[in-house]
Formats: sequence, structure tokens, C-alpha cells
Amino acid sequence: MEKLQQTIIEEGVALSDTVLKVDKFLNHQIDPQLMQEIGKEFVKRFKNKKITKIVTLESSGIAPAVMAGLILDVPVVFARKKKSLTLKDGLITSTVYSYTKQETNDISISKKFLSEDDHVLIIDDFLANGQAALALIDIVEKTNAKVTGIGIVIEKAFQDGGDILRSKGYQIESLARIKSLENETIEFINEKEYAK
Amino acid sequence: MEKLQQTIIEEGVALSDTVLKVDKFLNHQIDPQLMQEIGKEFVKRFKNKKITKIVTLESSGIAPAVMAGLILDVPVVFARKKKSLTLKDGLITSTVYSYTKQETNDISISKKFLSEDDHVLIIDDFLANGQAALALIDIVEKTNAKVTGIGIVIEKAFQDGGDILRSKGYQIESLARIKSLENETIEFINEKEYAK
Repeated sequence: MEKLQQTIIEEGVALSDTVLKVDKFLNHQIDPQLMQEIGKEFVKRFKNKKITKIVTLESSGIAPAVMAGLILDVPVVFARKKKSLTLKDGLITSTVYSYTKQETNDISISKKFLSEDDHVLIIDDFLANGQAALALIDIVEKTNAKVTGIGIVIEKAFQDGGDILRSKGYQIESLARIKSLENETIEFINEKEYAK
Repeated sequence: MEKLQQTIIEEGVALSDTVLKVDKFLNHQIDPQLMQEIGKEFVKRFKNKKITKIVTLESSGIAPAVMAGLILDVPVVFARKKKSLTLKDGLITSTVYSYTKQETNDISISKKFLSEDDHVLIIDDFLANGQAALALIDIVEKTNAKVTGIGIVIEKAFQDGGDILRSKGYQIESLARIKSLENETIEFINEKEYAK
């Protein structure tokens, strides 16, 4: 997605060989127009698939997920990283280790929001080692809902999450695929190389 | 806002005299169409005010804030409840005690996203005792940005946050104002009673 790649080049910062900071438009400050474009692109990439619900992870997945949900007219459910007092029972939980934050989180979704009749598009901001996506898939499949596909805003293609998920047969659509962050330089995998 | 009140009546649950569960459309599962209507309503209520940025708090404030930001074409910044490794320096922080979750959180915003030239609309999902809104105001004013107003999706008008904020002179626009949750019954303050 060209506009996204441009924004990453202009406003993203390669903090290290593995960390890309995109807090100017996605992870802390959000660019609503760009989120709308991202939502449209996800809808386009999964246009032949049945989708009854979108599942994402708080907090940075919410904006792109809600924009896609608005176009598809389906509800969005965001997995929570911590249990709150008003969400006690009936949770389906999975565990995620975040290499960036160096911590393990339980993420959970109330089981009443997913059923075996659901066809779920999973949307997340980043795909790196695949831990978050695998946990979201785990939660969705525990409810016997089907995973229709996985939409990722930014894939760090030099990490192995993309390979792990693709080898399991899921349709993964990453709107920007980072080849390398070495030497403080953001390099993309040429999208055309990977077009279907 | 009538559609919001209807949704609260149909899908909200009064868990106790003080806790309203709205996880079917706002706090866990999100209704994107309703979020868009809420965004439009906020824009209408602050239509004569200058707004250069929207500030909200993760996670449930993000969807309504992004919808308002899309219409106004301004960036949205969400305050984080925890520091992450990629967001270390240059944070402006304030403290919030959550009565619902019975815990104290530091919330923070990177100072580079707010300046004295900004006119900030604060948006949040709930207003109860006002702790979160006061912390967001504190952060915005520490950067010398101006608080244009505060948009709240649901105000628990039987708690004192609304009075505290209004007594400080801020324009508060709450799209649904709950008078009481007693006897498992959701009662609204008649909006017309409070129309300006």
C-alpha cells in the first residue's frame, strides 16, 4: 500500500535493527485519514471472503479495525490485555510474549462475542514474531469460529511471524512489508514481487 | 443523543448501582456505525470551536475519538496507561485512580504531540468521578495547549465528575447522561432539561 509506505518512510523511525517507531500515525498519535485508507485496503484484499466479525488487540489495532468494520458493517471485538472487574466470567484467554515490551500478557475475549457461526478477520498493527496473531487465532478457534484471514498494517518480514502463519495456510495480507531496518534505514519488500 | 440512549437501554446492563456494562458496543465489542454517529455528534456539539487535535485515553476512547478526528481532519493522540520500551523519553504524565478497576495508573503522552499552539478536544468513553478527564486536562495544560472542550460518550451524572469539570468552566458535552442505575434500571437525565 503505497500511501502507507510513504508515511512510514516520512514519519517512521528505525530505532534499532528490529524496532520501528510509528508513533506519529499509528501507535500513539493516530492519523484518522490514513486509518480509513487502511480500512479500505483490508476490505479490498479480503473482498471475496465472508466476514461477520473483526477481532483485534488493544490498543493500536483498534483504529484500523474499526475503519474496516465500518465499511464491512460488522462489529469489532478487541482482545483485552488485562482483566477488568466488569469483565470477569466467560473469558477465553491466550498468552502472548511481547519481545518489544519484554513481558507476558494474557489476552482475552468474552466468549459471548464469538460463536461457531462467525467468520473472523483478525486485524493487528504489527506482525513480527507472530505471537500476538497466534494468540488471537487461538482465541477465535477455541470458540469454533473460523479465521477468514489476517490483516496486518506493518509486517517485519525479517522476523519469522509471517512465515509461521503462512505455513499454517492462513491468508495474511500485510499492507507494508519491511525487509530490513538495518543502518537506521527502512527498506521494504517490493510489493509487486508478492502480488497475487 | 437518542440513538446512543436506545443502544444503552437495549444492550447495556446495570451491574450494580454504580457500574454500567456496555461491552456489547463500546468497551469490548465496538459498533463502528454507532461510533461514527457519536463522532458526528461530537463535531456538531463543538462546531464553533477551534480544534487542532483530539486527545483520548486507551482503549475504549479510541474508536469514538478516531471517528471525530476523521470528520474534523485532525490527529488523535491516545494517552497510554503504561510506558513501553519504545516510548521512553519526553513523556508528560499524570495519575488516575480507577474506582472500577481499583488501581492507580500513570497515563502519559509524548510531549512532541502537543504544543502551545494546539486546541485540544478531549474525548473519553465514560465520565464518573472525573479522575481520567482531570488527568487528561492536566497533561494537555502542562504542554501549554488549550483545552477546547470535553466530549464524553456516557456520563454517570449521579457521580460528581461532571460537576467538578463544569465548575472549572470547561464545556462538557456528554452524549448520554445517566441519572440512576438503581434497581438494575437505567434512567437518563432528560436531555432537553439540560439543552443550552
